[in-house]
Amino acid sequence: MLTVNAYAATAATEPLTPTTVERRDVGPRDVLIEIKYAGICHSDISNARSEWGPSTYPVVPGHEIAGIVTEVGSEVTGYAVGDRVGVGCMVNSCRECEPCRNGQEQYCLKGNTLTYGSIDRDGTLTQGGYATHIVVTDDFVVRIPEGIALDEAAPLLCAGITMYAPLRRWGAGPGKKVAIVGLGGLGHMGVKLAHAMGAEVTVLSQSLKKMDDGLRLGADHYHATSDPATFEQLAGTFDLIVNTVSAKLDLDAYLGLVAVGGAMVNVGAPAEPLSLNVFSLIMRGRSYAGSLIGGIRETQEMLDFCAEHGVGAEVEVIPAEKINEAYERVLASDVRYRFVIDTSTLA
Amino acid sequence: MLTVNAYAATAATEPLTPTTVERRDVGPRDVLIEIKYAGICHSDISNARSEWGPSTYPVVPGHEIAGIVTEVGSEVTGYAVGDRVGVGCMVNSCRECEPCRNGQEQYCLKGNTLTYGSIDRDGTLTQGGYATHIVVTDDFVVRIPEGIALDEAAPLLCAGITMYAPLRRWGAGPGKKVAIVGLGGLGHMGVKLAHAMGAEVTVLSQSLKKMDDGLRLGADHYHATSDPATFEQLAGTFDLIVNTVSAKLDLDAYLGLVAVGGAMVNVGAPAEPLSLNVFSLIMRGRSYAGSLIGGIRETQEMLDFCAEHGVGAEVEVIPAEKINEAYERVLASDVRYRFVIDTSTLA
Repeated sequence: MLTVNAYAATAATEPLTPTTVERRDVGPRDVLIEIKYAGICHSDISNARSEWGPSTYPVVPGHEIAGIVTEVGSEVTGYAVGDRVGVGCMVNSCRECEPCRNGQEQYCLKGNTLTYGSIDRDGTLTQGGYATHIVVTDDFVVRIPEGIALDEAAPLLCAGITMYAPLRRWGAGPGKKVAIVGLGGLGHMGVKLAHAMGAEVTVLSQSLKKMDDGLRLGADHYHATSDPATFEQLAGTFDLIVNTVSAKLDLDAYLGLVAVGGAMVNVGAPAEPLSLNVFSLIMRGRSYAGSLIGGIRETQEMLDFCAEHGVGAEVEVIPAEKINEAYERVLASDVRYRFVIDTSTLA
Repeated sequence: MLTVNAYAATAATEPLTPTTVERRDVGPRDVLIEIKYAGICHSDISNARSEWGPSTYPVVPGHEIAGIVTEVGSEVTGYAVGDRVGVGCMVNSCRECEPCRNGQEQYCLKGNTLTYGSIDRDGTLTQGGYATHIVVTDDFVVRIPEGIALDEAAPLLCAGITMYAPLRRWGAGPGKKVAIVGLGGLGHMGVKLAHAMGAEVTVLSQSLKKMDDGLRLGADHYHATSDPATFEQLAGTFDLIVNTVSAKLDLDAYLGLVAVGGAMVNVGAPAEPLSLNVFSLIMRGRSYAGSLIGGIRETQEMLDFCAEHGVGAEVEVIPAEKINEAYERVLASDVRYRFVIDTSTLA
């Protein structure tokens, strides 16, 4: 057992504080990773605060992990000490159900093991990446290619794959018009990835406040959704809309922007149900879909794609003692575009 | 100008009555068709009764037309006198927009010309298939292969293509589990077509009343949606659900039956919006889509497929004077599975 420094939430209403957490001994198929950077995902906040049901405390959040291998188990052949690696939202799954066999561990029918707050296959509670080290079974480790800085790589493990998977699944590429709704942590990755895939990219954001950023990140167009003219002007335009916004929105209005045969895909969702006029789908042969992160194989594919195209996240690196402040700034949308914890500050 | 016998609604609240209707002279690209059979589609009733907005009276319904070519224009090369042909829901479109150029005239951005109740490109009001003859531009005529009786072919022009298109688009075939919701005019074609495509077919019907029929038509399984156990037992089962029911239903419950990465497609829709919990889509990577009839090229493909696989509609052939009675029986779901008018009775 390895005791490592970490930052944890001890109750829903308490700030995160320094602590230590135990990591299991490195088993035959395990990889011990010295974490260099851990991204702050909005869902970390929701979990730390028990917003999605009661969390078990203390909880060490963090599922956007980039680091260096410092030890491997006797049967590990894919990784060696010194390798640059990442860990995302999952650290295990049943490996037997059809989705698992198809490389879609995110949809594991028996329930996958999340990087933190899950009961692992050995019965212990998983703890995440706001820590100096983590032990993960090799099948759930991915390689971070040279050419992506580790701090810019960390957010790819959740935000990156969350956007990459639907863009690929729904055919983003040359000749396709893609809109990204919301320019936050997810949205800014969507813009970069869709642009790198060769699509014509439009940002649909509440206001034009971040327009300069959006265009710099690779968007070809930028429109404010607070302006009703946007919905008239862009009616029937997009082959694909990826919606990163979890707030309740007028679904039929957004579907009106989708071209014949096109799709809108949600990667976030409001807690309350949405209202949908089915004629919005029928009269133009449209689809409305959901997408959840991505599988391990696809996460590796995404990282290789990012390295090839020079894509990384836009990050603001912070020391661990600024985690609580960062949480407040995330909630105020005051981050461009992802906080990443320099975990050396936990030492 | 050709004056032909027909049956028309003269007001929303009046029964249909015998009348005559004018057909334009056969132009260079026109085909004159002696109609042999015309199917009765539920939408005929809605139009005859102004349920979807005010119709212009008199209206001759009918967009499931099967007949024989009796004259062709000077520039028509694809059809000759004596050919067995069909006409479906559309008789023209702009031919210039992207959907038209892609063979998806049903999604014509400028609005296609419906077989009845539309203003045609020449400014006249179109009148449908409850008549002895019709004149249609050759691009909107399809060939009915030998091997499908004309009476069983007529309903393929709307009900058949409405089911064929989403089954193809969403990959119905060997190894796929397909559910058809509702066993009516559309649903029975869905069962036959999905079975002919090699899929494992399940009917989801309110009751088990038509189970024998469903199994005879090609279904492998049959479940009652009035039984809550159905939704538990079949959770996550289907790669594709095609929903033919226009009544308001519990969308999240039906989406729960869709497998990881699968789709539910509506070909009918209730007038009121549905409630949708977006997590139903996200947590299993599901899609919810709409589909509207099909393009002309695809309609021909469907007819060829039906001929190859011995698929036709199950019909009850009636004389014209029973149209009003048939309407009442359609509304009472008392038809297995499509009324087809023998238009020789109009003579």
